[in-house]
Amino acid sequence: MKKNNISTKPLSGFMELLPSDQVLFDRIKEVIIKNYEKFGFMAMDTPLIEKEEVLLTKAGGETEKQIYRFKKGDNDLALRFDLTISLARYVVENFNNLNFPFRRYVIGKVYRGERPQKGRFREFYQCDVDVIGDGNLSLKNDAEIPSVIYNIFKELDFGDFVIKINNRKILNGFFSSLDLEDRSSEIMIVVDKLDKIGIEGVKDELVNLSLKEESIEKILEFINISGTNEGKIEELESLDIDNEVFKEGVRELKEVFELALLMGIESKNLEIDLSIARGLDYYTGTVYETFIKGYEKIGSVCSGGRYDNLASQYTDKKLPGVGISIGLTRLFDQLKDNGLLKDYSKSKTEVLIVSLLEDFKEAFGLANKLRGEDVNTQVYLDEAKPKKIFGYADKNNIPYVVVIGEDEIKGGYYTFKDMKKGEQKQLKLEDILEAL
Amino acid sequence: MKKNNISTKPLSGFMELLPSDQVLFDRIKEVIIKNYEKFGFMAMDTPLIEKEEVLLTKAGGETEKQIYRFKKGDNDLALRFDLTISLARYVVENFNNLNFPFRRYVIGKVYRGERPQKGRFREFYQCDVDVIGDGNLSLKNDAEIPSVIYNIFKELDFGDFVIKINNRKILNGFFSSLDLEDRSSEIMIVVDKLDKIGIEGVKDELVNLSLKEESIEKILEFINISGTNEGKIEELESLDIDNEVFKEGVRELKEVFELALLMGIESKNLEIDLSIARGLDYYTGTVYETFIKGYEKIGSVCSGGRYDNLASQYTDKKLPGVGISIGLTRLFDQLKDNGLLKDYSKSKTEVLIVSLLEDFKEAFGLANKLRGEDVNTQVYLDEAKPKKIFGYADKNNIPYVVVIGEDEIKGGYYTFKDMKKGEQKQLKLEDILEAL
Repeated sequence: MKKNNISTKPLSGFMELLPSDQVLFDRIKEVIIKNYEKFGFMAMDTPLIEKEEVLLTKAGGETEKQIYRFKKGDNDLALRFDLTISLARYVVENFNNLNFPFRRYVIGKVYRGERPQKGRFREFYQCDVDVIGDGNLSLKNDAEIPSVIYNIFKELDFGDFVIKINNRKILNGFFSSLDLEDRSSEIMIVVDKLDKIGIEGVKDELVNLSLKEESIEKILEFINISGTNEGKIEELESLDIDNEVFKEGVRELKEVFELALLMGIESKNLEIDLSIARGLDYYTGTVYETFIKGYEKIGSVCSGGRYDNLASQYTDKKLPGVGISIGLTRLFDQLKDNGLLKDYSKSKTEVLIVSLLEDFKEAFGLANKLRGEDVNTQVYLDEAKPKKIFGYADKNNIPYVVVIGEDEIKGGYYTFKDMKKGEQKQLKLEDILEAL
Repeated sequence: MKKNNISTKPLSGFMELLPSDQVLFDRIKEVIIKNYEKFGFMAMDTPLIEKEEVLLTKAGGETEKQIYRFKKGDNDLALRFDLTISLARYVVENFNNLNFPFRRYVIGKVYRGERPQKGRFREFYQCDVDVIGDGNLSLKNDAEIPSVIYNIFKELDFGDFVIKINNRKILNGFFSSLDLEDRSSEIMIVVDKLDKIGIEGVKDELVNLSLKEESIEKILEFINISGTNEGKIEELESLDIDNEVFKEGVRELKEVFELALLMGIESKNLEIDLSIARGLDYYTGTVYETFIKGYEKIGSVCSGGRYDNLASQYTDKKLPGVGISIGLTRLFDQLKDNGLLKDYSKSKTEVLIVSLLEDFKEAFGLANKLRGEDVNTQVYLDEAKPKKIFGYADKNNIPYVVVIGEDEIKGGYYTFKDMKKGEQKQLKLEDILEAL
């Protein structure tokens, strides 16, 4: 049916969903928003376009190449590639009008011109939540983040999950004690791959870095510390490492872990994992990753951490923060591929009203009453045979159909059909509301 | 506090709100979404970037100059300037997987590089709702649109409002009867300005178009038809205009008007206005505009209409549709400027919990219980004097503060403060839930 040879496909790397999938996507987004707000985070919405110079203060390497840049008038512009840079700009710009600790969330699209491949998107939603302090920020904030994640994934119910936590100071202090502090970044990049390449893979890569065998053994021993969470903390405390940063990291990790449990997170959902490092220099304390059990290969579905300075590129003020991000587009894509979404497919439209009468008065009246009770209701407004209309409800996953014809008017009832069960009943309005 | 000479201001023409305004903005957005869904419209979300050729099929003149265009790799890309072009592309692309009539809404940002001026934005939200038929689409759909608008503006409660309707066929037929059909577009552009420049202004501009004096008189008489809605329809029916298109338009307008009333819209909120034309060639039947009474100068806050062919640039299939759009960013800006938002300022965070104890166990426990009852609750996690914390709640518009100290623990109660009333009570959990 196409003409003019213009393709109607969306651009490669850009997600576009059919309505039935969009419902699932939006449900996840709504659960995330609901829980962010339940913990008292406030909504924020910043432009998708920033001045190029703003984005380039933080981008580098691969990211810089992926930025969508363009000119309009005299301005060098670019599409944001994450939500953090805008947060930094916003906090500095509005510093005097914000109340600290400033707790905000953003659900927004970001853009990265990556080579398109399965599971990679050029336009994708990030769902960020952060709390920013003015000068200081209590560790209790670090402990609250896992509670937020916990509540979200508990409600989403994709399966069992585990939130892994660590503290960058432990890693930094540990490497410092091995006189490897100037190489900690490259070692951490390797350590970070543990989930993907396994302990032998990490060992091989460490050998490639030409580290002393003794150091490699110590590193492997360290990231392999196992047992219960409490056991790991005890082992860390008992290690003979005379380094203040290391000790501070252990104290912080212990405090964050204990506070997180006190906040109500189940201990089976929280795991201290000393191999978690979260990339390079940005994070300075607590770090988080989240995995769905049995689907670890998906990678972390929710990650983040503590940073000492949100906006050092703009200001000398110290603005420490802690936060996490959910890459919703990729998460949705992976959940769908792995069949983890199947139980949620239902339209937001709850009732479809079919009038067999010429006069739609009764249909419109019922629709208004149902909408008044917060029931999303569509009246089928076009001419069609009942069979076609039932097919429409079925294909759109609308769970209930109400039929109004002459018999119904005379009998003073509505014919109410449960599309899933295939059951049909004669009900009055009160009974319909009861049944919904 | 700025350094490096990088401005932290958002780009000119891009709205960026403080949290207290963001709450207001999001409330409006949520009411719009809620009502779109209440009428059984389904969410849709398409990419913000389209291939340039897709956008250029519809853009022209001013709009074309305003498009943000850029290259990435070999692709000529552009940011969408409205939501209709993506809808057309989407419906054609997914034709076989959609169920018609296809009812969808989109809330999304669009981009127009206009010269920035007060009330004009380069990035702005449009909130579109449309229903698309496959071949045919009943007039009942035209009648339902005012009900959707009515429910939204009723709930938003910015003041009294009126939804004006007309039908393009009446205008087309009327001009045809004057032998002015080939000039109807330019005359309609003038007629469309009636609200802005008044009857004398319209007359002057019609004179400038070198129309016959007789025709001008007939046009002014026509757009000046007054009285009740029913009276206007009667006057239209009794006009001696022997033109089939005109007569069809009158029949359609009458049917849409009567059905809209039957759907429950109050007659004081619906007005037939024969001067409404909605721009140029896109609309082919019913057209809508919405005005807040006393603030007509803001212009129409919600407009739309019926179109015969959604996607003629892609397909020979006839896809008639009807829909409306709310320009949310501009609406918000205007409402704020006119002081129409003032009563809604409240945080989404309902309770702030303050622990005066070293041990936050009680605070965390209470927070979880409140969140379990869907009460958005923040625990103040940082060290600060109570006075500062109350100031924080106050500045963030958090309506209730709960204090937990030694007295409270001993006494088995919480100190509950209503920040607005300034009242403080000693309550148990059940009483707090009652009070909220």
